[in-house]
Amino acid sequence: MDVSKDITVHNAPRKAEALMKRMWGKKGVFTCTIGSTLTSTIPGVSDAGDTPELTLYTPSADVELLVHGRTICMDGIPINPGGIPTPATVTMAALALSGMPFHIINGGVKVLPSIPYFDVGGECGRDIRTGDSVSNVHDCYERALIIGDMLARSHDFLVASESCAGGTTTALAVLRAMGLIEENLVSSSSPNNPKELKDSIVKQALETAGISFGDLRMDPLEAIRKVGDPMMPANVGLVVGAARRIPVILGGGTQMTAVLAAALKMDPSIEGNIMVGTTRWLVNDPNSDIVRIVKSIGDLPLAAINLDYRESPHDGLKAYERGYIKEGVGCGGSSIAAVLHSAGEVNCKTLLERIHSDYEKILEMI
Amino acid sequence: MDVSKDITVHNAPRKAEALMKRMWGKKGVFTCTIGSTLTSTIPGVSDAGDTPELTLYTPSADVELLVHGRTICMDGIPINPGGIPTPATVTMAALALSGMPFHIINGGVKVLPSIPYFDVGGECGRDIRTGDSVSNVHDCYERALIIGDMLARSHDFLVASESCAGGTTTALAVLRAMGLIEENLVSSSSPNNPKELKDSIVKQALETAGISFGDLRMDPLEAIRKVGDPMMPANVGLVVGAARRIPVILGGGTQMTAVLAAALKMDPSIEGNIMVGTTRWLVNDPNSDIVRIVKSIGDLPLAAINLDYRESPHDGLKAYERGYIKEGVGCGGSSIAAVLHSAGEVNCKTLLERIHSDYEKILEMI
Repeated sequence: MDVSKDITVHNAPRKAEALMKRMWGKKGVFTCTIGSTLTSTIPGVSDAGDTPELTLYTPSADVELLVHGRTICMDGIPINPGGIPTPATVTMAALALSGMPFHIINGGVKVLPSIPYFDVGGECGRDIRTGDSVSNVHDCYERALIIGDMLARSHDFLVASESCAGGTTTALAVLRAMGLIEENLVSSSSPNNPKELKDSIVKQALETAGISFGDLRMDPLEAIRKVGDPMMPANVGLVVGAARRIPVILGGGTQMTAVLAAALKMDPSIEGNIMVGTTRWLVNDPNSDIVRIVKSIGDLPLAAINLDYRESPHDGLKAYERGYIKEGVGCGGSSIAAVLHSAGEVNCKTLLERIHSDYEKILEMI
Repeated sequence: MDVSKDITVHNAPRKAEALMKRMWGKKGVFTCTIGSTLTSTIPGVSDAGDTPELTLYTPSADVELLVHGRTICMDGIPINPGGIPTPATVTMAALALSGMPFHIINGGVKVLPSIPYFDVGGECGRDIRTGDSVSNVHDCYERALIIGDMLARSHDFLVASESCAGGTTTALAVLRAMGLIEENLVSSSSPNNPKELKDSIVKQALETAGISFGDLRMDPLEAIRKVGDPMMPANVGLVVGAARRIPVILGGGTQMTAVLAAALKMDPSIEGNIMVGTTRWLVNDPNSDIVRIVKSIGDLPLAAINLDYRESPHDGLKAYERGYIKEGVGCGGSSIAAVLHSAGEVNCKTLLERIHSDYEKILEMI
């Protein structure tokens, strides 16, 4: 196994290498857990949608794209205000080239997608400034635990990922409630990361919820209930349920670090089966620091797919190199998984070719 | 492979043998699709519940039993009016002994189960006498097709099954609309099969819908929309989606023959991957004739698990020998699959031991 050209390890290299060897040529399954939080409709918080209201359509549109190759709940595809396409375009390519099976989990969304999905009894989340953000947290966690267990019986490794607009803000709130990192190091789908706005929202959320830094260190589900989003309990359960049996790649950027921290607290025994899988774009982001966040949680493997759009003929894709989008819909994790699942037959070169041809088809549809 | 002690073939023996060889020692996945139809609340139609209203709880209670080992949406376990336990008690044993992964699909129920399930956008069905029984038929079919395809990527064979009270009446209506068999040969969970009542309901349903025998021979989804139940479109899609890639056992009694007929009409190419798997009790039923129904659909393999409660110490189980229950919740199909998946390590003897010990625990819980 030599993946160095396609995958770069940014933390705990020996653990990463050992885990990737266990996944090499083995049967992976990709999952994407969707959720909505009204936090994403606070103007300026989320760029994952052309307008604040459209951010509520983005998760469902993303997974419709994965399943059908086109969106149903909205016209066109989810884009940032600048016209830059959803990272689901990368995930689509990784899934198509690898042939990996994949499943969507509905953690709780405002707009239901027109696809088959696992339901865990979740609902759209409230604005975290209420301090009472997510319903049915324990129940969703428990149900997703069962999904993780079932999928782990049928596969050799699993990718957990997310599409949840506003999710870096909720992640920041949960990371602070859990006492992991005070500093605002979470990412944004915009290069102009609205850090002050996020800080003020998180501050207000924690105050209303009566939480000081680290108060909920021992109770991640309560942190999620108060200041998280509905993607989280489902994904935490899924990760714990699967990682008790098989290696799990947490595919995503700083949003998924809240899931990582919560999952490890719920069941520390899973540590040896966990790796974060993201993109070169996210790791290179000067406005966030996933490596430091991961280090604050533990000595955990972190790997990034070396996808590079610098030579892309499409401005919408080139924007990723200027700090737009960078991650989401498990685009990094699915790409890493595609390389491992296919024992290297899928790689950055074949992914890039496929992304370009898919993207050209999408441009024709718009 | 010698399964003759545990499994008896009742139709197309060579095809059955060939298919079972392909599944022997291979990785199976069990599914159960639940649905409700208000048809089951017509007094006298369904015994799958202690009262007509409780029949609407039975599907969800059944799958809660499979997932949690206990019911949540109701107290106790689904029973016939005489106190005879749900066939889910058999399915539980088959799943536990084989360790097979399993998933629940919600085709459309009145009472949601407290478990994770695949949602396909279905709703509780209307009384078939309306002639307009099931909503979103095409959409549910299409979504379930995707589930079948995904599960077939991850497993070597699949069991499709059902829990839907009132389902033999809707099956009779669909079989007649499709012109397969005029005679009323469907089963009942009671030895006193209310054949006249079912006939009069089906007659009224077909009349209201304006369907004569065989009118919808070429359009099974329209037959289901008019006089079927919401378990059907989901299960038809699942079966077609999976059987395009891998062998599929249709686990169930006469209810599943409507699914069988519809699936084969939707995609005749799946024929070589299809087998009906049921129980000795159902095949022996003097008040129904699954063999003749299957023959009316085609030269299709039909096998039965040789479970025998004659020596059981429990009256509730012995009742199966007197014509009560006999099938449901894929109890026959899951048992056959457990034998195949485990390459014979699970067999009627180990199943029986497990059913007894599970049933004794359940009696303590009630």
